[in-house]
Amino acid sequence: MQGLLLWWERRCVSSTVLRFVDLNLRGIGQVMFQDNPLSGLLFFVAIGWGSYTAGVPQVAIGGVVAIVAATLTAQWLRVETAALGAGLYGYNAYLVGLALPTFLVPSPGLWIYIAFGGAVSVPATLGIANVCKTWSLAALTAPFVLVTWLFLLATYAFTAVEGSGLPMVDAIAPIDPAEANPLALGTFLQGVLKSIGQVFLKASIIAALLLVAGLAVNSIAAALFAVAGAIVAVVTAHVLGAESGLITGGLMGFSPVLTAIALGAVFYKPGVRVVIYALVGTIFTVVVQGAMNVVVTPFGIPTLTGPFVLGAWLFLLPRQEFERG
Amino acid sequence: MQGLLLWWERRCVSSTVLRFVDLNLRGIGQVMFQDNPLSGLLFFVAIGWGSYTAGVPQVAIGGVVAIVAATLTAQWLRVETAALGAGLYGYNAYLVGLALPTFLVPSPGLWIYIAFGGAVSVPATLGIANVCKTWSLAALTAPFVLVTWLFLLATYAFTAVEGSGLPMVDAIAPIDPAEANPLALGTFLQGVLKSIGQVFLKASIIAALLLVAGLAVNSIAAALFAVAGAIVAVVTAHVLGAESGLITGGLMGFSPVLTAIALGAVFYKPGVRVVIYALVGTIFTVVVQGAMNVVVTPFGIPTLTGPFVLGAWLFLLPRQEFERG
Amino acid sequence: MQGLLLWWERRCVSSTVLRFVDLNLRGIGQVMFQDNPLSGLLFFVAIGWGSYTAGVPQVAIGGVVAIVAATLTAQWLRVETAALGAGLYGYNAYLVGLALPTFLVPSPGLWIYIAFGGAVSVPATLGIANVCKTWSLAALTAPFVLVTWLFLLATYAFTAVEGSGLPMVDAIAPIDPAEANPLALGTFLQGVLKSIGQVFLKASIIAALLLVAGLAVNSIAAALFAVAGAIVAVVTAHVLGAESGLITGGLMGFSPVLTAIALGAVFYKPGVRVVIYALVGTIFTVVVQGAMNVVVTPFGIPTLTGPFVLGAWLFLLPRQEFERG
Repeated sequence: MQGLLLWWERRCVSSTVLRFVDLNLRGIGQVMFQDNPLSGLLFFVAIGWGSYTAGVPQVAIGGVVAIVAATLTAQWLRVETAALGAGLYGYNAYLVGLALPTFLVPSPGLWIYIAFGGAVSVPATLGIANVCKTWSLAALTAPFVLVTWLFLLATYAFTAVEGSGLPMVDAIAPIDPAEANPLALGTFLQGVLKSIGQVFLKASIIAALLLVAGLAVNSIAAALFAVAGAIVAVVTAHVLGAESGLITGGLMGFSPVLTAIALGAVFYKPGVRVVIYALVGTIFTVVVQGAMNVVVTPFGIPTLTGPFVLGAWLFLLPRQEFERG
Repeated sequence: MQGLLLWWERRCVSSTVLRFVDLNLRGIGQVMFQDNPLSGLLFFVAIGWGSYTAGVPQVAIGGVVAIVAATLTAQWLRVETAALGAGLYGYNAYLVGLALPTFLVPSPGLWIYIAFGGAVSVPATLGIANVCKTWSLAALTAPFVLVTWLFLLATYAFTAVEGSGLPMVDAIAPIDPAEANPLALGTFLQGVLKSIGQVFLKASIIAALLLVAGLAVNSIAAALFAVAGAIVAVVTAHVLGAESGLITGGLMGFSPVLTAIALGAVFYKPGVRVVIYALVGTIFTVVVQGAMNVVVTPFGIPTLTGPFVLGAWLFLLPRQEFERG
Repeated sequence: MQGLLLWWERRCVSSTVLRFVDLNLRGIGQVMFQDNPLSGLLFFVAIGWGSYTAGVPQVAIGGVVAIVAATLTAQWLRVETAALGAGLYGYNAYLVGLALPTFLVPSPGLWIYIAFGGAVSVPATLGIANVCKTWSLAALTAPFVLVTWLFLLATYAFTAVEGSGLPMVDAIAPIDPAEANPLALGTFLQGVLKSIGQVFLKASIIAALLLVAGLAVNSIAAALFAVAGAIVAVVTAHVLGAESGLITGGLMGFSPVLTAIALGAVFYKPGVRVVIYALVGTIFTVVVQGAMNVVVTPFGIPTLTGPFVLGAWLFLLPRQEFERG
């Protein structure tokens, strides 16, 4: 693996085109914190497969359009080379590019919207990162969430782009207990894998396995925390009595999966205390997911990874205190 | 009084158990900014009385469960000893523990929810305090408001915990003028005292008197500003034409009471200018209370002390300017 | 022009009354970033004309009441003299004073509300500016937006002040395509000019021309970016298919106009890159305007200049990165 990466790195040094590809692959990898073009490639294949089999190739293409627009924008803005090289200006755009065609009807307007959303995600990332830096926080996927929420909300005001997969605007109502059914083992496993796939908005089991592989080639710990986070999320959501359809579709678990990776394998040094802390943070993110599902109901938009951003920030902010311990 | 406190402090030095009790009592005292175990004890008795007579003992017990969970969590996280000893990791948890059983149906799920909410309030407090420190602000009750809002909102998504006292989800509509009736002297006095009681979510007059006593044993100024703030709030709310039922129940006044204490007796050095400034801040908090009552309507949750947090932060942020004057 | 300003400045030095007038005129000028009493005077005349011809003189008077209340408050708070002298404690209050009588029914309560809103805008400005300073950001019109939103929302809870021009509380629904009609040249020009007028909440063409003149006397660049921003906003909104009535009334363009001036002529040094950057920021602000129109729908309040604040902050935060380039 290391040999392969070295060979690739040598190629990139001598080729602007390959370096551009490298930047974008690392950007895709950074959706789950992996600064590694091979992780990015596996994630990319996972999304391609998931989009193709679901009959929505525009999703995979949207991701490419947005991340290329973002990388070009970042180069034009002359951002810091190290951060650009690590893919930090790509992952939010890639998610914007997956999310917009997931929730909107394909049209010429949509493609302009995607390219513009990808471009705008760069100042948004610079801006939010600048604010977060004050407390040694990472921007996480906040730029993606903010830009996509704005672009999705605006479709209710514009005719050139139209929602198709957007959740229905509705008044908040308590869950019908009949919707929180017992989970069989098969649906449990589905929920776990789809929780990982939904990080990239894909409810595909094969995509999920490719995503885990993409994590594992760069960090076994990240892969383990992803799977463990998904299991914790599905069990917690079920014990709390969340809607079974949401659990099985991975929609209660994708934010907790990201929290588990972030707290367990990325921002804190591993150890028993960190495992316990990550566990609490992951469970808390399930509660936040439930709360945000409710908050977005009257606005007709999805939560995206908002619960991850809120949950992880709250558990990362006490870092100094926690690490001194 | 001082003798009593010295005697107690000597006991605590030699006993881990008593020190633990001391920490928690100070935590209860900090709900109204009093780092004094006797204040905490009087507040605790007030809540116990209020809960017992209202037939909701689970509220008083919930407060204890949550604050104990928080203190243990804080110790496990090895937070700064001075802050822990002053009760700064307890007051948000205590309020979480009072609020959840006030708005939710008793059930086994509720008790786990309360303990977990208390525990999670500690990273939330550490995180929000960390952010606030940048502008020399205190976190106030923001961690309580954030955690409780999330946990209450999530009950609409989960079957294991169920709302009973939650406000009805509704569309916003202008107040019916018939609901803003004249206040008789008796109802005026009720509104004043219950405004103090509602700081702890209790509409009890005896509880309110015990709370004022708890303030007075540590700070006469705090007790005076609490009562004056309550009077200002009730008068302002009535002049503005707020719903009489809300005023009489103390629900327009509890946030302004906290603003009055914070601005008048805690964070600024007393003086004529500070009294005027606190008066303006208290009146402003009544307007914020009205606004937030409207904002939360479609979400079916109470404002909690959100208006206090917003109003007090806005009036504390100019501190440097104001104190230079 | 310079001679006139020198003559005026000499008068002000020797007269407390004229200095007070000067402060307030500069405050009005700062609504569009112009620290110039002549700009302020022209803006003031524009608002006076617009209010008089629209039969709502209370709007122009409200602006005066609020800005005078704010200047007196700022003096009482002993704010920094330089900032006060540049009108930085006046522009938010002036906008509060225009907005409240625009959306509320005239009544004795309204006038107290306006004066109090103006006064409270000063601590709000101090507080928000204090936070923004951390990232070398200006507060922009955030204090106006925050205070006015709170005061307008509160009218749903109070009988002493009543909404008349407030948007109807409604559930979010996709735009009816029939409402996005083609724009004729005449309506296009109207939309452009009214976009400038709506910065001061005025849909008047003559007011708009006076506002452009007020910009031009202090900064030709600001006048050009205002007009260019309005054109870009109207074209973008039309291409995206926004509601024609909103475009023609200037309601899709006033926030983008401010973004264009801020990015193009105030906070960045002019140049080709800045023009492109300002263009992208202006287009983005149109999308944000669409999104915020949707978000405020269930709350029955207008967006005010919220889209400008959000859009401009996001594009100003990367300043260090961008200027290094």
